Amino acid sequence: MADGDDDVPLILTWDDTSSGLLEEDENGAGNYDVVNNVVIPTPGAPDPRAQNSLRQSWEMNYQEAAIYLQEGENNDKFFTHPRNAHALSAYLFAHNHLFYVMELLTAVLLMLLSLSEAPAVPFLRLDVYVHATLELLALVIVAFELCMKLRWLGFHTFIRHKRTMVKTCVLFIQFIEAIVVLVRQTSHLRVTRALRPIFLVDCRYCGAVRRNLRQIFQSLPPFIDILLLLLFFMVIFAILGFCLFSANTADPYFSTLENSIVSLFVLLTTANFPDVMMPAYSKNRWSCIFFIVYLSIELYFIMNLLLAVVFDTFNGVEKMKFKSLLLHKRSAVEHAFQLLVSRQRPDGVCLKQFDGLMRFYRPRMTARDRFLTFKALNHSGATMLSLQDFYKFYEVIGLKWKARRSGEHWFDDLPRTAFLIFKGINLLVKSKAFQYAMYLVVAINGIWILVETNMLNVGVSWTRAVPWSYIIFLTIYGIEVLLKITGLGPLTYFSSGWNLFDFSVTVFAFLGLIALAFDMEPFYFIVVLRPFQLLRLFKIKQRYRNVLDTMFELFPRMASLGLTLIIFYYSFAIVGMEFFADVVYPNCCNTSTVADSYRQINVTIGNRTVLEEGYYYLNNFNNILSSFVTLFELTVVNNWYITMEGVTSQTTHWSRLYFMTFYIVTMVVMTIIVAFILDAFVFRMNYSRKNREPLDDPEDEKGIVFETEVSQTEALQTLDLYKHTLGITNLSSLQDMCVALERSGHSSLVFLGRRSRTKSDLSMKMYEEEIQEWYEEYSRTNLEPDETFHRELDSPEASATNSIN
Amino acid sequence: MADGDDDVPLILTWDDTSSGLLEEDENGAGNYDVVNNVVIPTPGAPDPRAQNSLRQSWEMNYQEAAIYLQEGENNDKFFTHPRNAHALSAYLFAHNHLFYVMELLTAVLLMLLSLSEAPAVPFLRLDVYVHATLELLALVIVAFELCMKLRWLGFHTFIRHKRTMVKTCVLFIQFIEAIVVLVRQTSHLRVTRALRPIFLVDCRYCGAVRRNLRQIFQSLPPFIDILLLLLFFMVIFAILGFCLFSANTADPYFSTLENSIVSLFVLLTTANFPDVMMPAYSKNRWSCIFFIVYLSIELYFIMNLLLAVVFDTFNGVEKMKFKSLLLHKRSAVEHAFQLLVSRQRPDGVCLKQFDGLMRFYRPRMTARDRFLTFKALNHSGATMLSLQDFYKFYEVIGLKWKARRSGEHWFDDLPRTAFLIFKGINLLVKSKAFQYAMYLVVAINGIWILVETNMLNVGVSWTRAVPWSYIIFLTIYGIEVLLKITGLGPLTYFSSGWNLFDFSVTVFAFLGLIALAFDMEPFYFIVVLRPFQLLRLFKIKQRYRNVLDTMFELFPRMASLGLTLIIFYYSFAIVGMEFFADVVYPNCCNTSTVADSYRQINVTIGNRTVLEEGYYYLNNFNNILSSFVTLFELTVVNNWYITMEGVTSQTTHWSRLYFMTFYIVTMVVMTIIVAFILDAFVFRMNYSRKNREPLDDPEDEKGIVFETEVSQTEALQTLDLYKHTLGITNLSSLQDMCVALERSGHSSLVFLGRRSRTKSDLSMKMYEEEIQEWYEEYSRTNLEPDETFHRELDSPEASATNSIN
Repeated sequence: MADGDDDVPLILTWDDTSSGLLEEDENGAGNYDVVNNVVIPTPGAPDPRAQNSLRQSWEMNYQEAAIYLQEGENNDKFFTHPRNAHALSAYLFAHNHLFYVMELLTAVLLMLLSLSEAPAVPFLRLDVYVHATLELLALVIVAFELCMKLRWLGFHTFIRHKRTMVKTCVLFIQFIEAIVVLVRQTSHLRVTRALRPIFLVDCRYCGAVRRNLRQIFQSLPPFIDILLLLLFFMVIFAILGFCLFSANTADPYFSTLENSIVSLFVLLTTANFPDVMMPAYSKNRWSCIFFIVYLSIELYFIMNLLLAVVFDTFNGVEKMKFKSLLLHKRSAVEHAFQLLVSRQRPDGVCLKQFDGLMRFYRPRMTARDRFLTFKALNHSGATMLSLQDFYKFYEVIGLKWKARRSGEHWFDDLPRTAFLIFKGINLLVKSKAFQYAMYLVVAINGIWILVETNMLNVGVSWTRAVPWSYIIFLTIYGIEVLLKITGLGPLTYFSSGWNLFDFSVTVFAFLGLIALAFDMEPFYFIVVLRPFQLLRLFKIKQRYRNVLDTMFELFPRMASLGLTLIIFYYSFAIVGMEFFADVVYPNCCNTSTVADSYRQINVTIGNRTVLEEGYYYLNNFNNILSSFVTLFELTVVNNWYITMEGVTSQTTHWSRLYFMTFYIVTMVVMTIIVAFILDAFVFRMNYSRKNREPLDDPEDEKGIVFETEVSQTEALQTLDLYKHTLGITNLSSLQDMCVALERSGHSSLVFLGRRSRTKSDLSMKMYEEEIQEWYEEYSRTNLEPDETFHRELDSPEASATNSIN
Repeated sequence: MADGDDDVPLILTWDDTSSGLLEEDENGAGNYDVVNNVVIPTPGAPDPRAQNSLRQSWEMNYQEAAIYLQEGENNDKFFTHPRNAHALSAYLFAHNHLFYVMELLTAVLLMLLSLSEAPAVPFLRLDVYVHATLELLALVIVAFELCMKLRWLGFHTFIRHKRTMVKTCVLFIQFIEAIVVLVRQTSHLRVTRALRPIFLVDCRYCGAVRRNLRQIFQSLPPFIDILLLLLFFMVIFAILGFCLFSANTADPYFSTLENSIVSLFVLLTTANFPDVMMPAYSKNRWSCIFFIVYLSIELYFIMNLLLAVVFDTFNGVEKMKFKSLLLHKRSAVEHAFQLLVSRQRPDGVCLKQFDGLMRFYRPRMTARDRFLTFKALNHSGATMLSLQDFYKFYEVIGLKWKARRSGEHWFDDLPRTAFLIFKGINLLVKSKAFQYAMYLVVAINGIWILVETNMLNVGVSWTRAVPWSYIIFLTIYGIEVLLKITGLGPLTYFSSGWNLFDFSVTVFAFLGLIALAFDMEPFYFIVVLRPFQLLRLFKIKQRYRNVLDTMFELFPRMASLGLTLIIFYYSFAIVGMEFFADVVYPNCCNTSTVADSYRQINVTIGNRTVLEEGYYYLNNFNNILSSFVTLFELTVVNNWYITMEGVTSQTTHWSRLYFMTFYIVTMVVMTIIVAFILDAFVFRMNYSRKNREPLDDPEDEKGIVFETEVSQTEALQTLDLYKHTLGITNLSSLQDMCVALERSGHSSLVFLGRRSRTKSDLSMKMYEEEIQEWYEEYSRTNLEPDETFHRELDSPEASATNSIN
């Protein structure tokens, strides 16, 4: 019989027979005695009932260990760990992708409703009862989700959890409002719709957005301090400006103190710059000093100070976050380890237990990969994993396993002639000459496009015919792609991001061409695609490769920052629509200083008559899409005061508050984005400097690689273990491995596990020394692990990690 | 006889009798044998001639050591060290403040000439022969300076020195041009005037500007790389935009490829933002995606990348600069040490030699301070300074010495009643209550000013009468100042920067009041001063104190960056004046898209007639002052395209090149400024975090303090040594010290040497560990000190330090 078959778990969890009585304490492991309601079978005389009970206990333990590890991965606090079998079933119900997707879709549906509500996008307008009913439906789903959460967390934990409580309150309000709308059959002033993004933020898939929001809130205190400094100087200068320039009646910018303050606020964004100075400047040339001093202090000094302060906070927060994530994972691994060891051998986890864990943790993983992961963890080569080995769990879990290829090229096994041909192609595509020839082609293509575009006259209508040059260049690119695929082999070819890029651009271009042949007018499509080929030129220089690679690495994070920004946009758009829908239109705002920008009228200048078209009425809050565009324009800041003054002149002075608040909010978010980009790049550059290695060789970017050698006997033993002891039926992957081993004729086979490098890996290397200190500190204070850990997590700095779902 | 009286220098330098024959090798010390043309006197039988010769040798050595130390301080390369007595006299002539001031004044005069030349500022216009003669005069002075430099450096070194050679060439061209102007009696197109700032940059006092320029040039290569990426995307989008939008005849922004590129370049600066989108947006709402994508990539990603790259380069350069400066100083100290030790005792410098050195190095220093500096260096307490002691030279040289006050307060020695009164005042002004009461007063004052200003109607003419509230608040401030001065004592009071600020603001306010009483109309003056009082509120919060203190610390560096910017402005202003003087005027530019901004005409809108005043004709290049204002407006970037298009429509399309180049240049400089501010603040915050100490307690900011105890016997001995052996006559400071010692009744007196903390001190602490490594590396490679050092200095990274004067 295989080893460990009648081991008894050190800790029993969620025991059905004792549930309710036997609740774990908060840290879930280690501090209570084992309850002996499991009959320990005497060796050699297996009692089927006892065996069964033992197996069930183990299965329970596997499941809980898997949950601990998931909590470690997702950075969920352990106090939300399910306590008993009821909680467990609710937990399992609420923790799968189906549930997450439902959560997400409901939240998105709620947000999308604003497309069809009152100031609706014309072609999406829905009747009141339709969208109100939809809303009610969505809210019911949200309520259902909350109920599941309540069942899983228990009432006590539930009301302690702030985000959930806020969500509940918002849900309640929305419910009432939706019912009111349904009853009255008309929308009332519903600013509370601005709170809808809360449902989205609370989704499991939006963890990154939550992190961003937390980071923004953490950067706020220093930011606000400097902001006050900024506003203080603004007010001082406003008083000064009012005193100096209000005597000039031709100067509308400083006519009252309020105007003065608004003008200087806008000047802070430079949006009204030389204009605000001009009336004063035309009267007295020295008045420019006032504006130069103001801009130097406010724009060039204090605004940069804002960035410096946020950057500094950001830096610190990133490190603290990394630290607490790391320690949280370590703690999760320890909890899981406790659940996997047996009473007989409390120092190690053997393959059987590990496999059991993995079946819960990664149900889709094949038996072979589970076995290889175990081998990769097992550094010492013993039959069991020590805690030290197990700590590496998160590093190896994402590995994709593949047997090391015996030959160098994919065509090594082909007949001689074919081999020589492919070898030739291989050498050709790998040669510098070929690469530079291609760069040359791309460069010529670029110049060609430029010249061709320049020669096009506006008068000439766009012909349907594709220019012949386009077909020629496309053919060259097509041949290049084919050569590369045949020369390098598809696998090698597609493993490089750049090649993938080449391939897809070329294929899309061909598709466009074909579509054109069938007269499907994908004209824009081709126009957009053509210049993309030119991007390949940037492969030439190391720095560009670095930049573009970092860009791709940053992409997920940038996307989440973008989403965060959109959430802010959404809230502001709702408020804007409620208050400013349909207030601006052509030829409105005649009482304001920006009337010109809204004017659409025939104007007589001297003796000519021209149509003067001010387009700014298009920047309105008439529906959510227009609002988004308007808010983007406000984010870009230039000329934002025209929109502000237009709206203000049609409503009240208080409207300015909305625009100014929006400016400050986007300033915060934008500063964070800048700080983030700065931090990411500086970190990367420091990293590659510290490790004295070019971080990204063009083709060498291999990420993290683990190697594991499997001997034939080992493979057969494992197969046997799986088949007979564990009773697992789906073993095709393991059997394949054994067959491959036999066929290769070698006594062993090397498997390579790869994954791409993440920011966390880079941080691990950067903070190597400090990490050791953290671990020591952690294990020192780990005598009372529970308290310390929670203190750690609840401390303001570390609260970056407090995300429960 | 005092010690070391007939010691013979280990190294003899610039020996008159052997000059020409006995030239030092490049590093000036250590590698050649002493030439024995000094008669060593036999002890006990002083031969006056030999004594004299010996004294002269020592004096020479002192002087050369002082020059070495100066070179170390000024970061001059040692290969420009004067080689012989002729060079020395030229060196001394060219290295004193009189010469420096002449240099500076000449350069400033040359630059100021552009105020009076051809497109002159109206009230400063000079006749051609006047300004041409002035110019010639200034150029002759520059030529004279260059001759002195040639004499000092020698022809060989002179032509090896790039900056000097560039200066010579520019001088030559300017000379010829000035003569041509004088002969023709009219100015021709003189773009070379743009090179005039070179004379200013080369001045000794403008070392900081040279450093900035070097830093800018060092940041250029990575900057240009990213800039190319930026321009590449711009061109791609321009092609795309042209293809998409040129069909729309109402869209002037994309009508041709050139327009398309220019529009997108301007869009990069956001200056034309919603406008450039509007025509396309009004036709098709989805076209906003093009602009959103463009701005996201270019403005929010690549532009920030620029900052990241510059910031990173900047960071590295700062550290390298600090390192090479430190090692250069160390090397200078070693050279000087070699010259100060005697053949009898080659391991130490005694007071006599040190004093001799100091008389050359700091001629103004009193004998007492020289002695105290020696004591401060002398850590071991032996009679001589070891090399290790001497390494600290630059740390103690700036100390201001003061005897430690025996009592705690200035009024301790007063009679009892007075003492009690002053003690009371002292306690009062030090109490929290008093401070917060003052904050309250300031806050009320602030609100008062705001309310008062707001209540003023524009119609009400400014009264001459001072508001009574102003007098009341000023009285309160005056009383506060008096209380503080009497309570703390003037010395303590004025040693705090904040108190100094309070004092000067209050005094100026009083002066303004008095001037008003005499009807001198200093109205602006008072208006400007009033809000300054409010700045005191920022003392409340630690972060503001930090920020403001850092601001003051940064001030010199910011000023030099400002000066650098002004030098760029000057060159661009000259070029602008030569090409664009008088091209824009009211109602010009009717063919351009920005005609409105230049229009000054009665316009009929509907049935109203208004004067539409476009002020942009004021942004011109008609004289150097206007040019500066125009360039500042271009720096702020908003609406800069109006100026560009105006000028372009009156000249050629190539004018855009000028404006675009200017934008890119200011972008570089501004990015450097931002990087600098970021770096400085982040450095400071890291520093205070690392040292776990609040960097600046309000009153505790003491800077660097050294303590030295002097006993009575020591003082008398020193006095004796100075008087009899060294034959120095001006000993009042030492005598005062002896008298003070006697009067105090103590056997010894403690002296405190203080100086403010510099960035270098902070860096020393920050890089503590690395500095040790650098030193070790330096002393390892110091076996061939010369080569290493020059290699170090000539390496591209360290070239930050290569400044010779």
